[in-house]
Order: sequence, then C-alpha cells, then structure tokens
Amino acid sequence: MTDFTATKAMFHLPPGITYLDGNSLGPLPLAARDRVAGMMVDEWGQMLITGWNRAGWMQAPRRQGDRIARLIGAPTGSVVMGDTLSVKVYQALAAAIDMRPGRNVILSDSGNFPSDLYIAQGLIKSLGRDLELRVVPPEKVAEHITQEVAVLMLTEVDYRSGRLHDMAALTALAHGHGALTLWDLAHSAGAIEVDLTDSGADFAVGCTYKYLNGGPGAPAFIYVAPKHADAAQPALSGWLGHEAPFAFDPDYRPGPGIDRMRVGTPPILQIAALDAALDIWDGVDMRDVRACSVALSSRFIDQVEKHCPDLQLASPRDPAQRGSQVSFRFEHGYAAMQALIAQGVIGDFRAPDIMRFGLTPLYTDMQDVDHAAQTLGRVLDQRLWDRPEFRRRAAVT
Amino acid sequence: MTDFTATKAMFHLPPGITYLDGNSLGPLPLAARDRVAGMMVDEWGQMLITGWNRAGWMQAPRRQGDRIARLIGAPTGSVVMGDTLSVKVYQALAAAIDMRPGRNVILSDSGNFPSDLYIAQGLIKSLGRDLELRVVPPEKVAEHITQEVAVLMLTEVDYRSGRLHDMAALTALAHGHGALTLWDLAHSAGAIEVDLTDSGADFAVGCTYKYLNGGPGAPAFIYVAPKHADAAQPALSGWLGHEAPFAFDPDYRPGPGIDRMRVGTPPILQIAALDAALDIWDGVDMRDVRACSVALSSRFIDQVEKHCPDLQLASPRDPAQRGSQVSFRFEHGYAAMQALIAQGVIGDFRAPDIMRFGLTPLYTDMQDVDHAAQTLGRVLDQRLWDRPEFRRRAAVT
Repeated sequence: MTDFTATKAMFHLPPGITYLDGNSLGPLPLAARDRVAGMMVDEWGQMLITGWNRAGWMQAPRRQGDRIARLIGAPTGSVVMGDTLSVKVYQALAAAIDMRPGRNVILSDSGNFPSDLYIAQGLIKSLGRDLELRVVPPEKVAEHITQEVAVLMLTEVDYRSGRLHDMAALTALAHGHGALTLWDLAHSAGAIEVDLTDSGADFAVGCTYKYLNGGPGAPAFIYVAPKHADAAQPALSGWLGHEAPFAFDPDYRPGPGIDRMRVGTPPILQIAALDAALDIWDGVDMRDVRACSVALSSRFIDQVEKHCPDLQLASPRDPAQRGSQVSFRFEHGYAAMQALIAQGVIGDFRAPDIMRFGLTPLYTDMQDVDHAAQTLGRVLDQRLWDRPEFRRRAAVT
Repeated sequence: MTDFTATKAMFHLPPGITYLDGNSLGPLPLAARDRVAGMMVDEWGQMLITGWNRAGWMQAPRRQGDRIARLIGAPTGSVVMGDTLSVKVYQALAAAIDMRPGRNVILSDSGNFPSDLYIAQGLIKSLGRDLELRVVPPEKVAEHITQEVAVLMLTEVDYRSGRLHDMAALTALAHGHGALTLWDLAHSAGAIEVDLTDSGADFAVGCTYKYLNGGPGAPAFIYVAPKHADAAQPALSGWLGHEAPFAFDPDYRPGPGIDRMRVGTPPILQIAALDAALDIWDGVDMRDVRACSVALSSRFIDQVEKHCPDLQLASPRDPAQRGSQVSFRFEHGYAAMQALIAQGVIGDFRAPDIMRFGLTPLYTDMQDVDHAAQTLGRVLDQRLWDRPEFRRRAAVT
C-alpha cells in the first residue's frame, strides 16, 4: 500500500484528535494560511484592482478547474470553479433539460443529497413546464430509465450509506434511452477513481471542501462534456460567462465552452486556500488513494464489528460497492457520536440513526482507524452516550 | 466635515499610490489578514467540522447581513449574505416575477450593469413565459412604468456615470402601477445614504467588495422587504434555505423570512475578511460618509476641470444626482488611465471612453483628490498616454 506519511504531514491535525469527518469538511492544509495571507497582502493589498490581471485572479476558476479535472478523469478545459454545489446543480440541470425538450422526467433516487432534489423542485416550479421529479430507490434506478427521462440526476456516492452507483453502466443505459446524465461528485472527487470521459457523463458537479480540503465554503466545480459545452445554456447567465465580459454589451452572448458556466466574481480568498489544498493532490495518483481507502475502510468495518456488536453496518460490505466512507446504524447514534467526539474521535451523524465515518488516505492511517474503532467500542461498552449532555441536539450536526 | 483620519489608518494603502478605484475593489483592511488567518488556524484548523456550530459559521451570513442592513436602512433580519450579485439578482427577479403572474414586462434601463440585464435575459429564456425585458434610457424610466410592468429592476447608481436614480420616487411610482421593485445597490452600499425601508423597496441586492471593502469575490447580499419575506419564492431552493436543513427531508420547504434566500454552504474565509472590513463601518454614520463624499467629488470635478480641459464630465454636476464616483469622457481614456496608473493614481476605464474615479471617504482625503487631479493634468499636458505601452489593451481593465 502506498505510504501517505508525506501528505499527512502537510495537514494541521489537532493533537489528540482522530478525524474521520473529512467527507464533510477536510482539515486545514498547513500551507493554506500563508497562501491566503500572501494573496491578501501581496496581491489584494499591493495590487488592488490590478490583481484581477496581474495576479491572474480572473482566470483562477479555470486554472483550479483544470487541476480538479485530472482527479475526475476530465480533460483540461472542461471544468470551472465557482458558486456552490447547489447553484451548479441548478445550472447543469437547467442546461440538460433544455437539451431534451420533448421529455418531462428528471429521474433521481432517494439516496441523492436532499439539496439536489430541492434544487430540482425549485427549478421545476420556476420553469412552470410539465416536468416531474421522479425519485426512486437507488437499487431501482436502472429499471426506471425510460424514454420519458430527460435527465438522470444522481449523486455517485450516497452521502449516508456510502453506496456507490455504477456511473458508466447507468450513463450507458441513460444514453441508450436518449437521456442525459448529471452526476454529483460531492463524495467522489478525491475519494474514489472517477473517469468522466470514459463513463460518458454529460454533466458533473462537485464541491471542494470535503475530500479536496479547500476549506469551509470552498467553491464548487462544474464539468460539461466537451461535446455539449458549446450548446449548453447556463441558465444563470452572468457577466463572467459572457463571451466578452468587459465589453459591457447589453446582450448576453455565452462564452466558448465551459467558460459560459461562470456567473459572477470568483471568491479569490477561497480559491487561494483551495490552491494550497490542491498542491497536496498534485503528486497523488487516485488509484493509490482508492487502494488505500479500501484497505482503511475494510479494516474499520472489521474493527468496529469486533468492538461494537450493537452497531449495524449501513454501508455495502463489498468495497467495490462503496465510496470512501463507512456508516453504521445505531438507535442512539446521535448521542454516541457526541460521546465519541468528546473522546477525540470525530465522525458525524445523519438522521435518523446513521453514524458516519470518512476514510481519507491523505491524512488517515491504520493506527487512526484502529484507535477510532477501539474508542467507539469504549463509548458503547461504558454507555458513555447515555449522558444528558450528549443527548441534547445542536442545531447543526 | 467629519475627520476620517482614523478609518484611513485602518487600511493598507500602498506607499506612493493614490487609490480612486474603491468603487471597483476596496483596499485591504489591516485587520483582515489576521482575522482570516485566525479563522483558518483557530477555527477551521482546531475545530474542524465542529466550527459550523462552535465558531458560528452557519449563522455568519445572517450576522454579517444584519451589519450591512444598518448601512442601507433595512431592519435587522431582512438581509442575508451569499453567492454573487448575479445569483442574487436571479433569485430576487424570479421571486418578484412570481409575485406578479399577470404581468409580462421587466423594466430596466441602459445604465444598469450588464450582468443584471444578462441575468434577466437568462431567466426569461429559462422560464419560457411570455416575458419581455424592456430596456429604456435612464431618464425615461418613469414614463415607462405602466400596468404591464411586473418588476422595475434598476441599479441605483449608474456604474459608468455615477448618475443616481431617485429610489423612493420610482418605487412609489412603480407601486402606484402595481409593479414591484428590485434595486441593485452595488454602487450604493457604503457609498450613499440608502433607506430601503423608507423608500419602500421590495427587493434589493448588492456586493461587498466595492465600497464595503470585503475583498475580491466577497459574497453578495440580498434584502427582501419583511412584508414579502415569507411569500417570496427563492428559485434557487438550496438546502440552507430549507426550513430545517439538517433534517434532510426529501421535500423542500422554504425557511422563514430572509433565510429562504440562502442557497448553499457559505464562504467562510471570505466572510471572515468581510467581518474585519465591516468592523471599520461599525463606528461610521452614513450621513457623514455622504457629506464627505460630496465634498471630495465636488472638489475632484473642480480640480480636474481646472487641470484637464480636454476631459468632459460624464457624471451629473449636481451632487444630489450622483453617487460616490466621478467619470470623465476622453477619446484616449483607456491609454490615459493606463498612463495615470503608471504615475501611481489608480482609477479605471469603462468602454468606450469613460475614465472612472471612486471617492471613498473612509480612506480618501482632499490631498488625495488634489494629487490625483494634478497628476491627471500632467498625463494630459505631457501626452503621457500617447505611448505604445499604454495603448495596448489588457484582457481586464
């Protein structure tokens, strides 16, 4: 197994903490603070408005997009950063629907992240067209792909269970029925091997604050297959997606290719932090990450099942069927997670009863996994979760 | 006139530079670097995912929104931060159109920032309804307000000329004809006195990287009049606008009031920088800022007209008719601006021939204004602009 000691040393990991929540928010890359401070002082401070050209801020969403493209099997020039994942879902979904005017079903599954479903609901409401969001169980997606479907919109890795869809097979099936596909890679980018080109995906979106470690509120990314990029309508037709943003024409003309999916002014501080985070990825091969992730998650399942007989595995046991997280069901999961966090092992909880753990090879090793499982065993053995302070729910978990 | 020496000392202003482009990108507040570094190290680094609760990240868009509300005459709880200005225009416009189903005209003017017009064009295209974007000259807006108009969408201060619309009068006229109003405050917030409550505005949006000094790509804000806030449909119905984001319900239910205009994960690094920038505003009364801005801009006009007879004033001469910027027309404006920047005086250029200068009392004083006008006079007298290096156009100006 590839040794990730070197990348682990590139993160700030608080002493005494075992962090298994990088699938929700990646930790701070050590270089990020100085990268952002440098950008603020040397670029914003010294260059002021001229930083847009001189420091290359204006093209940063494309430059960082190209770095992410490598990690998700997309060609250079097919990915651009900006906005949030929900906004990018809206753009991609609107563009896809527009390309399938005679069809009226958006097909998704109940394992999709709710915000993707909400965005689809809002878009349908806005469009006022006879469109239906059809949400089926994940295992029934294939049989619901019909000639009615305009867009198959799925999150590749289920945010609760970690269950992994077969992107290539479902995309081929969708194409066979004339439908387009939109893949949410929130729990895929930096987590598993993704090959957007080989799988034939039409649109993809993702966030950069989970496995990619870009920091809280890091910008999203959007991919449009090159064959569609000059035809896709961006829906949110903002000035930075214009063919000539600084010509200040009164009429919108979409820019070439992926540029048209840009909307407004990019968040340069967030992009500076992301830049430092992506430096760590530059030397990494996703095949090695995946192999290590499988080893870590398999070991974690073994150890938790050994130490915690009351927990029930909620993720597929076959590593080929799951992403880079492992989830367990436990009736008192919320309180148990709070108790575990109080013991220095951080995972998270998803209603109603899911205890969720991200296995992130860049900074998580076998010792961390064993320690986490043992600590969880102690929380359960000693019923540490059964204390009032852990049973009280906070607003955000 | 109020003395702003104390606030000027709170910014990093590069030695030898006179900065009259704060209407495009405000300078770096000295406290911002450490605020962002502190957020990154003490919150992201140490708290990791728990920062969303423990460091209050989740509610930051509301907290910062409340601070901006004070500067634009809006009540606490009516403003929220997020996304970019273009995205917020889309949401506000979609909501307003939805509230006027029987009407089919979006009325705007040719002085509006192009991105607002582009967003309206994109929205109309998406909706597929029989909607028309009617763009009239700024001085003809009033006479085009009719019963056909669903929404009057205007930027209060023209980004090129600095010409100021009468928000209260036009809003009253719009309401008299049953239309709603959407005001873009990009060049108003922190620039002039705005009273959204008194003027009766229905929706307003703005950015925070200009006069508010939040940094490149700082988040936008959106205001919805309290009487509409529980009825407005957010169009971009993302999870953080949901009534209970962490319940992960499959169906979207808009949150109460302004919260529903939130979409995705907020950009916490940008918000930390904005927080430091807004600290400077906390002790400031917008009436004092406006009085100083009028004095500065009037003086600048006097001095430029004295030193630069070839320039033609493109802004209203009456200060009551203009915002906090002054623009001049000059055939060789692009090259002259480049030559002026080479002399250490930074303004900007807007096609075809506008030289634009922002007067920002927090860090600009009479000496700056006099120095800028004298330097501009020298650029023209000595035809410094007539050099090849200044006539070559960069991608972004």
